[in-house]
Amino acid sequence: MNVLVIGGDGYCGWATALHLAKQGHRVGILDSLVRRHWDLQLQADTLTPIAPIQQRLRRWHALTGQTLDLFIGDICNYEFLIASLRQFQPEAIVHFGEQRSAPFSMIDREHAVLTQVNNVVGTLNLLYAMKEEFPACHLVKLGTMGEYGTPNIDIEEGYITIEHNGRKDTLPYPKQPGSMYHLSKVHDSHNIHFACRIWGLRATDLNQGVVYGVLTDETGMDELLVNRLDYDGVFGTALNRFCIQAAVGHPLTVYGRGGQTRGFLDIRDTVRCIELAINAPAQPGEFRVFNQFTELFNVLELALKVQEAGRAMGLKVEVQNFPNPRVELEEHYFNAKNTQLLDLGLQPHLLSDSLLDSLLNFALKYKDRVDEAQILPKVTWK
Amino acid sequence: MNVLVIGGDGYCGWATALHLAKQGHRVGILDSLVRRHWDLQLQADTLTPIAPIQQRLRRWHALTGQTLDLFIGDICNYEFLIASLRQFQPEAIVHFGEQRSAPFSMIDREHAVLTQVNNVVGTLNLLYAMKEEFPACHLVKLGTMGEYGTPNIDIEEGYITIEHNGRKDTLPYPKQPGSMYHLSKVHDSHNIHFACRIWGLRATDLNQGVVYGVLTDETGMDELLVNRLDYDGVFGTALNRFCIQAAVGHPLTVYGRGGQTRGFLDIRDTVRCIELAINAPAQPGEFRVFNQFTELFNVLELALKVQEAGRAMGLKVEVQNFPNPRVELEEHYFNAKNTQLLDLGLQPHLLSDSLLDSLLNFALKYKDRVDEAQILPKVTWK
Repeated sequence: MNVLVIGGDGYCGWATALHLAKQGHRVGILDSLVRRHWDLQLQADTLTPIAPIQQRLRRWHALTGQTLDLFIGDICNYEFLIASLRQFQPEAIVHFGEQRSAPFSMIDREHAVLTQVNNVVGTLNLLYAMKEEFPACHLVKLGTMGEYGTPNIDIEEGYITIEHNGRKDTLPYPKQPGSMYHLSKVHDSHNIHFACRIWGLRATDLNQGVVYGVLTDETGMDELLVNRLDYDGVFGTALNRFCIQAAVGHPLTVYGRGGQTRGFLDIRDTVRCIELAINAPAQPGEFRVFNQFTELFNVLELALKVQEAGRAMGLKVEVQNFPNPRVELEEHYFNAKNTQLLDLGLQPHLLSDSLLDSLLNFALKYKDRVDEAQILPKVTWK
Repeated sequence: MNVLVIGGDGYCGWATALHLAKQGHRVGILDSLVRRHWDLQLQADTLTPIAPIQQRLRRWHALTGQTLDLFIGDICNYEFLIASLRQFQPEAIVHFGEQRSAPFSMIDREHAVLTQVNNVVGTLNLLYAMKEEFPACHLVKLGTMGEYGTPNIDIEEGYITIEHNGRKDTLPYPKQPGSMYHLSKVHDSHNIHFACRIWGLRATDLNQGVVYGVLTDETGMDELLVNRLDYDGVFGTALNRFCIQAAVGHPLTVYGRGGQTRGFLDIRDTVRCIELAINAPAQPGEFRVFNQFTELFNVLELALKVQEAGRAMGLKVEVQNFPNPRVELEEHYFNAKNTQLLDLGLQPHLLSDSLLDSLLNFALKYKDRVDEAQILPKVTWK
């Protein structure tokens, strides 16, 4: 199948592009490379030295004989987008191409506006391009579990059946997103749902949890294929950050009490979930929503797991409760469903000691690259 | 109270600004005047000849001695916005300043993007300005009943209490908006809700129905204060359009079967609802939602009422079912709640024969200004 991976130079996108190529799909990568630019601006850098995209692709070609198409540009530029689609003729589009950091979106007004405009307009352009010229194409769009917030009832997958005053309907699940970034994903979901209802497009919205890990079968093949691994306060996420903090002897940064429960998954499951969604596409007119995570953890629990694994390796690991830079509940009910991807055949890589060991060793290997000034959060929600 | 009316040169905004001034508030109008520009671009024009804003305000001053402050510019320009707010020092902000036509938003991709970016960024700028410098100010934001779509259960005011798997929570009411414009209002609602939850701002979201009528006590005082009255296929809305169609002998344009049920209200109730919301502000941190309409009608029912009133005046009035340019259910359940504004003291002007007579006579007075080429819809949802 012709699969275009938008944002294919990023953490999830790069791993996904290679995985899909390995499965025999014809893969194209479309990326504006703006994430590398933001890293420069924030003076943050991935733990792992990532090669330029052209070099990555040349190495992949040398190892596998496969050529991935490359389109460098911004999907907010419609002329560029439609020209790329015409050339590539996608049957499925995997859309990772958004600003994906909550703290980035909360830096200030400009970053909030940038995040919402960039994400909403990029997705709108994609929907119009599909409507006009690729109506049968399947959009696989990355959403986030953070769209739901922390309601006091079970979180279903995208929809909920409500009985009210003697009548019943199945409606979009109510959303209470916790940052300007998470809001942008809620906006996208509504826009995509509309495009499916009104224009008959087909889409799968993957409400992904927090991804951890770095190696996949493909990105682990060669140093030049190595994936990015963020540990800074803006783009880094809980478990990955904890492992890197443990490697450099920085106290693990638990925000507030640490009772915040979230869905998590291994990056090897991310790439597999995308594959499963592509292979069993949504129907025309269908806006399908999957919750893409494999396990629920709270933040303190994760920190303690990393501490234990680190100590077993002889590392000194302290866990510290830092003032929470975010405004969020630190103790709350959280029970989210995730059966649809399992039903499609996902066999989860549950969080294990061996994964933690591997991630800690990976962090130790590159620990001289860590800039400790980037670890503590600098962006607050207030 | 210092009340800034954003979009105060528009149909609802102008009537509201004068009404609030009459009630003794110190009123400022902030408007980019872009709606007049769009009229020129679409070659559409209000039935009524509306004076330039400066002339309107001079006439109001001559009649009442009151001076309204005027700020001409775009709230998407943050520097302009914050400078205006600093000068005016608002205690309440009434925000009508958005692209408000569903067909306009569905013209093409550019108009969809324009609508969502304009509406979302304008409101984000306002929220940031309030957070930074006017945290006690009360935002009264115009939403639309169209945010809800046509669910098969009763529509509550903004929130719904859901019992699910033995637990219970009160959550934002699920939204299924029917155009790129309606989507933009849903995005706004989520953004404003966030600003109240996280920053403690106070806001009232008025999910308004379809407004009809043209005269209020204030706009009826003088020809130079006359309000706009749109009849074209882009900015015109059901009942107003029908009266003008009846006046010029054009068949009443019922889209599809006409079973589409919506909430409606008289413009005299619009201005009163805003006044009520301002006088009983939301609490700090509260995102309050009122459904702002007084009666439910379906479109065919309204056309028949206009036909009857027109015939009683000796007009020949035909009702015709036109192919529906929109994608929407033409027969559906619709039961929306609207008790909160009534509880605050709203005494509705229900749709009456005398209102229809008055509106028909008004349409007859200006019927030579009608361009019949503007009546039929040219924008389709597909």
